Amino acid sequence: MSSAPLGVFDSGLGGLTVVRALRARCPAESIVYLGDTARVPYGTRSAETVVKYALGCARVLVKRGVKALVVACNTVSAVALDALRIELDLPVMGVIVPGARAAVQAAGGGAIGVLGTTGTIASGAYPRAIASFSTRAEVIAMPAPLLVPLAEEGWVEGEVPRLVVRRYLEPVLARGARALVLGCTHFPLLRAVIDSESLALAGKLITIVDSGEAAAVDVESFLKERSLAAPLGERGRLELYVTDLPKSFAEVASRFLGHEAENVQAIDL
Amino acid sequence: MSSAPLGVFDSGLGGLTVVRALRARCPAESIVYLGDTARVPYGTRSAETVVKYALGCARVLVKRGVKALVVACNTVSAVALDALRIELDLPVMGVIVPGARAAVQAAGGGAIGVLGTTGTIASGAYPRAIASFSTRAEVIAMPAPLLVPLAEEGWVEGEVPRLVVRRYLEPVLARGARALVLGCTHFPLLRAVIDSESLALAGKLITIVDSGEAAAVDVESFLKERSLAAPLGERGRLELYVTDLPKSFAEVASRFLGHEAENVQAIDL
Repeated sequence: MSSAPLGVFDSGLGGLTVVRALRARCPAESIVYLGDTARVPYGTRSAETVVKYALGCARVLVKRGVKALVVACNTVSAVALDALRIELDLPVMGVIVPGARAAVQAAGGGAIGVLGTTGTIASGAYPRAIASFSTRAEVIAMPAPLLVPLAEEGWVEGEVPRLVVRRYLEPVLARGARALVLGCTHFPLLRAVIDSESLALAGKLITIVDSGEAAAVDVESFLKERSLAAPLGERGRLELYVTDLPKSFAEVASRFLGHEAENVQAIDL
Repeated sequence: MSSAPLGVFDSGLGGLTVVRALRARCPAESIVYLGDTARVPYGTRSAETVVKYALGCARVLVKRGVKALVVACNTVSAVALDALRIELDLPVMGVIVPGARAAVQAAGGGAIGVLGTTGTIASGAYPRAIASFSTRAEVIAMPAPLLVPLAEEGWVEGEVPRLVVRRYLEPVLARGARALVLGCTHFPLLRAVIDSESLALAGKLITIVDSGEAAAVDVESFLKERSLAAPLGERGRLELYVTDLPKSFAEVASRFLGHEAENVQAIDL
């Protein structure tokens, strides 16, 4: 079982930032990734619709014999994790609990800002997860939907992303956040702007927590504890599946993944 | 048949700007609107996927006894109109040919700029339609994907939309466009910024063509010619269906429609 791949899925390509973090931390693990590019984005949809779509994605990966499922999508992690665990007979890990835990550690009892899609923020999943690690941490949650198209279009530097990021961060930092969670897989692409604007607005360094990176840390521990980790020294393979394959796919995917996206196959759900 | 409703569909809520134009021009017509909010946006998807989704939407409306179909979505009009006409046994009208005709008239032989989603621009549908009305009109087509989330989020004034609009318009107007087509149903919400930035950049008034308004003009003529127009003096009803109903729906819909969205029903495709 330990040499079986990890299944990772997301509403689209954003989850490739989680794949990137997983491959950096667990290079021996093979990964089968499914991006539901035919129905992206999930962040603006109802919880019922997200659960339905997520189950469809998960079943595709289960059929491919994965040993555990990593839900790279914050929106799915926020609203569909319970449904997936009830329906599926394998370990299911999300990105929100790892992100929340890392933020509580980083904030040292101070307030925690969370940026996410409208759906993730409306779900209240981050405040709930943070409260399970610290009963006193104040959470300032801010929907930041425009960061998604900026990341997808590659508008990650210059005046426009700076002004957009500033508009979302200003009220969060004005309330004294000491850590900031990037609660959407797209946001790490805007990391440079988020770093510089948070420094400019707060006048000091704010710890930025990438939920995808935090999840990769937790996945590594989990696989070791359960003796499910791939044998050291192996080099994990990466298989990419998407439900729709627009022409711009390769370009956007390589930006998220950090290297060329090879062997991408389109499947119908 | 003349008292049967018109069927209008779109990938989401953007088509409500077309409904608004139709109701202003043909107040006697009843309209059944379907917004595929569970799968919005279409503009970034492959042609095959758009055709599949569009046929699904159209069949829902045909079952409700509509007398003609108005495809409010530019992306669907660009890639799926032929498929719809082959599959369906009723008149099917899009927004691109009306927009192209109005632009050719407005440009007086000069160049025509077109703003649209990535999918609409990549399809080449506007240049083809424009060429069918004028063999010498130069077309400058520009994908402007960020205008969609700006319109949906209500960021329609201030520095961010101004800078984004300017970035898209600058290369179009530098090449001397004399008319500008808003080739996406979302863009009329940014009309004020587009008007002022095009004036500032070009130094003179550029005719802005709203494809939805142009389509409403064509629909009115078509219904009269075919004796399909609703009896004058009637007051048309509006029924709204969506495939997903997020909480923010009513707010966004009223912004597109220009009045409260009532009697909205969610259906499953």
